[in-house]
Amino acid sequence: VPLRARTRTLVDHKRFQYFIIGVIALNGLTLGLETSRWLMERIGEFLHVVDHTTLGIFVLEIALRWFAEGMKFFRNPWNVFDFVLVGFSLVTAAGALSVLRTLRMLRVLRLISTVPSMRKVIEGLLRAVPGIASIAALLGLIIFVAGVMATMFFRDIAPDHFGDLAATSFTLFQIMTGEGWPEIARPIMERAPVAWVFFLIYILVSSFAVLNLFIAVIVKAVEQQTEDNTDELLKEVQGLREDLRAAGLAPRPTSSSAKTPVLDGEVC
Amino acid sequence: VPLRARTRTLVDHKRFQYFIIGVIALNGLTLGLETSRWLMERIGEFLHVVDHTTLGIFVLEIALRWFAEGMKFFRNPWNVFDFVLVGFSLVTAAGALSVLRTLRMLRVLRLISTVPSMRKVIEGLLRAVPGIASIAALLGLIIFVAGVMATMFFRDIAPDHFGDLAATSFTLFQIMTGEGWPEIARPIMERAPVAWVFFLIYILVSSFAVLNLFIAVIVKAVEQQTEDNTDELLKEVQGLREDLRAAGLAPRPTSSSAKTPVLDGEVC
Amino acid sequence: VPLRARTRTLVDHKRFQYFIIGVIALNGLTLGLETSRWLMERIGEFLHVVDHTTLGIFVLEIALRWFAEGMKFFRNPWNVFDFVLVGFSLVTAAGALSVLRTLRMLRVLRLISTVPSMRKVIEGLLRAVPGIASIAALLGLIIFVAGVMATMFFRDIAPDHFGDLAATSFTLFQIMTGEGWPEIARPIMERAPVAWVFFLIYILVSSFAVLNLFIAVIVKAVEQQTEDNTDELLKEVQGLREDLRAAGLAPRPTSSSAKTPVLDGEVC
Amino acid sequence: VPLRARTRTLVDHKRFQYFIIGVIALNGLTLGLETSRWLMERIGEFLHVVDHTTLGIFVLEIALRWFAEGMKFFRNPWNVFDFVLVGFSLVTAAGALSVLRTLRMLRVLRLISTVPSMRKVIEGLLRAVPGIASIAALLGLIIFVAGVMATMFFRDIAPDHFGDLAATSFTLFQIMTGEGWPEIARPIMERAPVAWVFFLIYILVSSFAVLNLFIAVIVKAVEQQTEDNTDELLKEVQGLREDLRAAGLAPRPTSSSAKTPVLDGEVC
Repeated sequence: VPLRARTRTLVDHKRFQYFIIGVIALNGLTLGLETSRWLMERIGEFLHVVDHTTLGIFVLEIALRWFAEGMKFFRNPWNVFDFVLVGFSLVTAAGALSVLRTLRMLRVLRLISTVPSMRKVIEGLLRAVPGIASIAALLGLIIFVAGVMATMFFRDIAPDHFGDLAATSFTLFQIMTGEGWPEIARPIMERAPVAWVFFLIYILVSSFAVLNLFIAVIVKAVEQQTEDNTDELLKEVQGLREDLRAAGLAPRPTSSSAKTPVLDGEVC
Repeated sequence: VPLRARTRTLVDHKRFQYFIIGVIALNGLTLGLETSRWLMERIGEFLHVVDHTTLGIFVLEIALRWFAEGMKFFRNPWNVFDFVLVGFSLVTAAGALSVLRTLRMLRVLRLISTVPSMRKVIEGLLRAVPGIASIAALLGLIIFVAGVMATMFFRDIAPDHFGDLAATSFTLFQIMTGEGWPEIARPIMERAPVAWVFFLIYILVSSFAVLNLFIAVIVKAVEQQTEDNTDELLKEVQGLREDLRAAGLAPRPTSSSAKTPVLDGEVC
Repeated sequence: VPLRARTRTLVDHKRFQYFIIGVIALNGLTLGLETSRWLMERIGEFLHVVDHTTLGIFVLEIALRWFAEGMKFFRNPWNVFDFVLVGFSLVTAAGALSVLRTLRMLRVLRLISTVPSMRKVIEGLLRAVPGIASIAALLGLIIFVAGVMATMFFRDIAPDHFGDLAATSFTLFQIMTGEGWPEIARPIMERAPVAWVFFLIYILVSSFAVLNLFIAVIVKAVEQQTEDNTDELLKEVQGLREDLRAAGLAPRPTSSSAKTPVLDGEVC
Repeated sequence: VPLRARTRTLVDHKRFQYFIIGVIALNGLTLGLETSRWLMERIGEFLHVVDHTTLGIFVLEIALRWFAEGMKFFRNPWNVFDFVLVGFSLVTAAGALSVLRTLRMLRVLRLISTVPSMRKVIEGLLRAVPGIASIAALLGLIIFVAGVMATMFFRDIAPDHFGDLAATSFTLFQIMTGEGWPEIARPIMERAPVAWVFFLIYILVSSFAVLNLFIAVIVKAVEQQTEDNTDELLKEVQGLREDLRAAGLAPRPTSSSAKTPVLDGEVC
């Protein structure tokens, strides 16, 4: 399979990767320029050509990397990420729907999978996810329970914010971000004075949960750090103990009778 | 008491617990659907039947667990939590008051006591409470003292926000969450220019207190983490010392005269 | 001086302290009730009597503690805190100025100096102050420099927010708290489109400084924690080393020639 | 070169540095006073004279320090900072443009390079920069991608906030600071109900990225701290091991055969 090996050499080459990064950046630039109506009237045709060309290059690149690695290609989640983004672009390139065409922009996120330091950042972020999954689920539960209750309580008083479960969920998300909650709560409190109980409890509970979500991420990161430090220390201390055992000064952990001082008996 | 033992086997069974989780989720779903007036007109009767059935299942479940564990049942705070929620639902199911009927939704919080990972999160949150109790009390004191003063100062200038102690407390809570304080402070400062002194001091003091509340939680969590790490190390080092003592190389801590080198005397 | 000794016994007694805490709480309650005009019309006279009585009790208490401890009384900053608050109340009790009379409320802050757990919280907060003093000074410098520049730039465009240095400082403080800055920036940007440069730089710089202020407090608190942990470890390891030195197995740090193995020579 | 040496003695003298700090502070004061129109009418001439004098002193100071240190002067970035600020002031002093004249105020930032504790704070802040560079780049990428998409989606619905890429970027920065996003999102959602998908994803993603930016800074600072602690410990443990090796009790790491107990063979 010399062709496959040569393809792999090509695909893994630094210059090839720099070239792809350059094409992604160029694609981002042209998509950015397409937001300008003035430019679109003048060089819109040209920008579309560039856009289609870059898409062609991406398709070729993915095909080459797939060919080079075979089915192992899909074991790396970053490859799946690239494949989905480019495949998605191909599908939408055909369609005429303007919303889908705008989603082409997501292609530029390929910078994340292509630039190694970006990859590391995202991998670091994702590592925090398992630690926060149950807190996030708890937050979801809180919003759902509070949402049903708030809809029942306030839908006649403030139909704009609490008209149905969807509107209430959005409003509760807004309150959780701490944005403009007094403008929502004060008019309601004028008609239902005890409503402050609901808002106070919801704000305290939800911000405490968000706080703990943050803390879980912080602790995870600090833990990673201190563990590296103490691991080094632990290894040093264990090595020291091993040395003493080798010198016959300390009992071996396996033999239980070795707890009597070894030195006395052996020396005299 | 073979019946009691068999009940305990049933209640502790994984499938029984999954069934209860399913019923809670179903109950949450139907209560959520009840927020839709369109659905209530069509299948409202059905939703009420499901609601009453799930409540019946919960009552039966609590009764079984109570019977299985006897009075030990109430020693576990999570059981008390379940008991209160279901008992509360029973009471309100009879009543006609719409507000109380809405509080049925709290029943869905039983998910927290039933799903183990949720329980852990809540137990983690509660563990932080003792560490922050005195800071929370301090915050309460700050709001009370600032509230009395602000009411006296501003009640004639801004009766909406500072009309009486209750309104002022709500306003100060709002300012503490950092939400819309300029809209409150600026109109007052137009009539009482030195009012900025009060707002500046209150914002600095209260946000510093809130910050310390957060930090207390963070430090508690990090401490938990690092303690686990250093405990392992400490045990290793102490074990090492114990080994040396057993080998007669280090003096035993109890005998104070053992500080003289033991080895010299015993070997020669 | 048996009278002084007996006074000290009285003043240090747990019951005496509980009594004072009770009086402070009662004072806080009556001052809170005084915010109600309805109550003031009915039992205002009575509330004033209670207020004056509690002030009398405080004066007596401070006098007793002063007498008991002599001039050492003023060495404890908490005593100075009490003395100033009560002395201040005495001065304002005579005056007729309503603002000063409201400041009586500060007396309730004596709860902080009287309840031990509150004292600890405040002492913890104050311990963080030296670590953040230079960052706070930097923040002050940033606000001053940005304030002079913003006044010069925007005073003709937005005289309400940037009319003079005092108004600008308040506005910049508001922006630093992240509250309502778009409502300030957008109207200015309509007349001076490049103003976004100023706002962007100011928001990034000031929030980065505030973030570092927070971090300094967090690090201080975590450091305190981990230091306690590692100190214990360090003591254990150093004790171990000391043991080995006592056993003649390790060279003493002072004698440089002791680096040759001691054991070989002494045993054979 | 005795003149150069004497200049260096002068420039490094504590009193010379205090004098310069005083001149900077005086300059800041006069520039602050210049914001007052009332004062400018009366003593504006005098303030300008003071301003020009202080600028002259700064030029002389920089010249002296340059002369004293030769070309090494520019190796210290703080000197470059001073040089640029003063040089910039010289350039703008000639010009008549009011905006440039206001930038003179930046001169007062020289306090940062002159006061040692301020320098330390800034150096601490800058040390955090490499750790957050890739997260900041990621944030930039997110804003760019979201910006192009939001411009395409919303420019016809909300031309004020999403009219072109510049306006959208500003709006997205505003939403990232969590300020007033509901006022932007709600009117759009009235015309394009699915817009909540965009806002929800953008808020979650951008605030998660900002959170990680904060955490990177916190972890960096905590790491610095704990590393100092564990380094001390590690040194102590390694010293202990070295002692045991010197005593022949532990094998030297280089000789692989030394793993057999040394003591037994040598003593008997």
